[in-house]
Amino acid sequence: MLPDRISSFINEHIETFTAELSQLLEIPSISTLSEHAPDVLRAAEWVFERLKKCGFTGKVYPTERHPIVLARSPEIPGAPVLLVYGHYDVQPPDPLDEWQTPPFSPDIRDGFIYARGASDDKGQFLTYIKAIESVLEVEGKLPINLIILGEGEEEIGSPSLETFLIAHHSELLADAVAISDGSQLAPGIPAITYGLRGLSYLQLDLKGPRFDLHSGMYGGILHNPAQVLADILQKLKNPDGTVAVPGFYDDVLPLEQWEREEMASAPFDIEALKNYVGVSELTGEPGYSVLERNSARPTLDINGLWGGFSGEGAKTIIPAKAGAKVSMRLVPNQVPGKIEELFTRFVTSLCPAGVSLSITGVHHAGPVLVKRNTPSMLAAERAIEAGFGKKPRFKREGGSIPVVNMIEKHLDQKNILLLGWGNPDDGVHSPNERLSLADFRRGILSAAALFYEMAASRR
Amino acid sequence: MLPDRISSFINEHIETFTAELSQLLEIPSISTLSEHAPDVLRAAEWVFERLKKCGFTGKVYPTERHPIVLARSPEIPGAPVLLVYGHYDVQPPDPLDEWQTPPFSPDIRDGFIYARGASDDKGQFLTYIKAIESVLEVEGKLPINLIILGEGEEEIGSPSLETFLIAHHSELLADAVAISDGSQLAPGIPAITYGLRGLSYLQLDLKGPRFDLHSGMYGGILHNPAQVLADILQKLKNPDGTVAVPGFYDDVLPLEQWEREEMASAPFDIEALKNYVGVSELTGEPGYSVLERNSARPTLDINGLWGGFSGEGAKTIIPAKAGAKVSMRLVPNQVPGKIEELFTRFVTSLCPAGVSLSITGVHHAGPVLVKRNTPSMLAAERAIEAGFGKKPRFKREGGSIPVVNMIEKHLDQKNILLLGWGNPDDGVHSPNERLSLADFRRGILSAAALFYEMAASRR
Repeated sequence: MLPDRISSFINEHIETFTAELSQLLEIPSISTLSEHAPDVLRAAEWVFERLKKCGFTGKVYPTERHPIVLARSPEIPGAPVLLVYGHYDVQPPDPLDEWQTPPFSPDIRDGFIYARGASDDKGQFLTYIKAIESVLEVEGKLPINLIILGEGEEEIGSPSLETFLIAHHSELLADAVAISDGSQLAPGIPAITYGLRGLSYLQLDLKGPRFDLHSGMYGGILHNPAQVLADILQKLKNPDGTVAVPGFYDDVLPLEQWEREEMASAPFDIEALKNYVGVSELTGEPGYSVLERNSARPTLDINGLWGGFSGEGAKTIIPAKAGAKVSMRLVPNQVPGKIEELFTRFVTSLCPAGVSLSITGVHHAGPVLVKRNTPSMLAAERAIEAGFGKKPRFKREGGSIPVVNMIEKHLDQKNILLLGWGNPDDGVHSPNERLSLADFRRGILSAAALFYEMAASRR
Repeated sequence: MLPDRISSFINEHIETFTAELSQLLEIPSISTLSEHAPDVLRAAEWVFERLKKCGFTGKVYPTERHPIVLARSPEIPGAPVLLVYGHYDVQPPDPLDEWQTPPFSPDIRDGFIYARGASDDKGQFLTYIKAIESVLEVEGKLPINLIILGEGEEEIGSPSLETFLIAHHSELLADAVAISDGSQLAPGIPAITYGLRGLSYLQLDLKGPRFDLHSGMYGGILHNPAQVLADILQKLKNPDGTVAVPGFYDDVLPLEQWEREEMASAPFDIEALKNYVGVSELTGEPGYSVLERNSARPTLDINGLWGGFSGEGAKTIIPAKAGAKVSMRLVPNQVPGKIEELFTRFVTSLCPAGVSLSITGVHHAGPVLVKRNTPSMLAAERAIEAGFGKKPRFKREGGSIPVVNMIEKHLDQKNILLLGWGNPDDGVHSPNERLSLADFRRGILSAAALFYEMAASRR
């Protein structure tokens, strides 16, 4: 159990912690834009400095793109080992003009801190560091062994992490892995995520004529790549919204009864959701609830498309090129490689002569399903109860965390605790991303409690 | 019939005429670049000076940007009136380093004069002035009444012309209008263009959620505007490539037998076309030839589309917005306003709840079809035979010429003679634009012949 004096310390110092979060959020560590590489490095060093001050050993490891932080607490023989993973890189902030305050000038209003990365994942990752500092400040030592693994490439699919996990395998063995890079079920309703969707993200590039052609002179005699693109994209979905790629659903594991009941009883306000995202009607796969659709059923989305003239006014051309980014969210037991093969075969069959098509895999991740009654899962359940004042619900999430797949695979680790401190309406990957300061505080409390609950579960 | 002594005079003075064309081509009258406004004015004055010397009355009219020249020959009561339209502004010459000789230092080599504007339209426009001078020099008077309308804004969409036509309506009434701002069918194969396609150019804007959403959290539960856009665009065309907008073909005038024969017998190399545009296969409306498809049949093209993320790598979003520019090439008797209404009704019916759609008209122009057997058309046919030594072919063109629509509409003029003296490979709007000196001479002969043929047709 988390000693009261630690909770008090955390509750009393939350303003200082928030100011430190602001510092980290000011660093525009956008991993996908190479000009921000120095910022990602700065964020890594910022994280490592704090751990060093806590007596952790380790280092900032360079990779081909953005550095990885690996740090370890002073050894407590016989105590359990908890590996904490988080990331300090962020998504690009565009469209910039939709931000109420600049994305890298954190602004506190109405109990939230607004900035790119506030919830995903700087704010959540930082709770562990603040928990460590708090425990050390109050108790002088930690109750368990901690390994902190911080990454700067999560938003670009963690290209260096896999090699790193293999190379540092022996330094990363742990009894459980904690990752806070998700959300509660709803504000005030904490949850443990036991399932994640996987992802296959692909890019389609279509080429027609050698150069943009005058649509008056050439309109009507050749395939327009933008039209071919639309035709292909339309055929990816059936009229009922299901995915039309042949074989797509073959390996999908049906939902279990308890899962459907947990989802059906979950407090979930569809009207609030519609209001939040600003649409009048939801839609989706027939026979499934909204929560099932966005967490436990596979889907396909166009993430972007382009081609020809998009400026003001008119340009009467047949574009030479068009393209799209398409991603599929996968569920157990779909396999990304197989899905990509099915997709590629299908899309290729839809492209007419006179237009050339290339399909490139951008990144992918397998789906995840974690057992619910392991000792570390039960410890996490108690820790959340301590931090949030109520038992967590169990949920599946619609997103992917590729690192979870890698940890599963390369560290042979099944005890993965996905403890989201954020909220579904934090606006991650969107303008005006935010984190509730109450959740930030509860996250720190829960992280500290997890150290003690894990220590207790071993005794 | 053109008196022999005039043909002889023209043939004997072609070097002097070419030197004068050089003078006009030296003026860098680039209408889109405001720093060249004095040059456009200089070109207008150059043109007007020559007409004044021929006894024409009129003036250089200032407009908000570039001046218009309107000049009229001394009245010959009872003789027909021919309005000649041309333009003395030019496209920018870039890329400059692709010019073999500087664009505003006319160079004569291998029987061509190379300079920006040589073909489009200074060289072609000047044929009428040289024809006037030649007739006056030899005969002392013109056989018909001539109105010369010169413009300095054609390359920027003629923004001032419409107002000018309305304001000077009564001074512009004529029996026919001659425009030489196009090309023959192929070198040595003169042609009269009797048809132009019209245009309806629209923009579609789709809005889904208020902002870009995380596709993991929201994928599968709401309409993705990029998907809805693809679905709509796909449904605009039938599988055979015809336009699927209900009612689209209702007013299409079928091709007449003579037209199909004319097109079928036109010298036209499909392999050369495929090679030039770089596609392995052509396609199009079943039952029509390539020439019919790109000039005399209506079509629909996506000119551009956009939505979501198009950068490097991956961004896992459901875009908040998506959009497209779509244009339809129209043929007689399709009416842009009606087509836009049909399009809007159809597209609106395809947009599901949860996504909002707006459709904006960007611009439009009606199709043009000039009757082939009017006295002025027959006069033009004979004039070209006199100038080029062979009968012209009759062709329809796939593009629109906005000034033709303005003249049709505001001068209520149906007798529009589109007499291109240039050639398809003159490189208009491209580096190394040129005009064949033989075509320049034949153009002058044809212009002079047209004056006499029109005079004769009235008798």
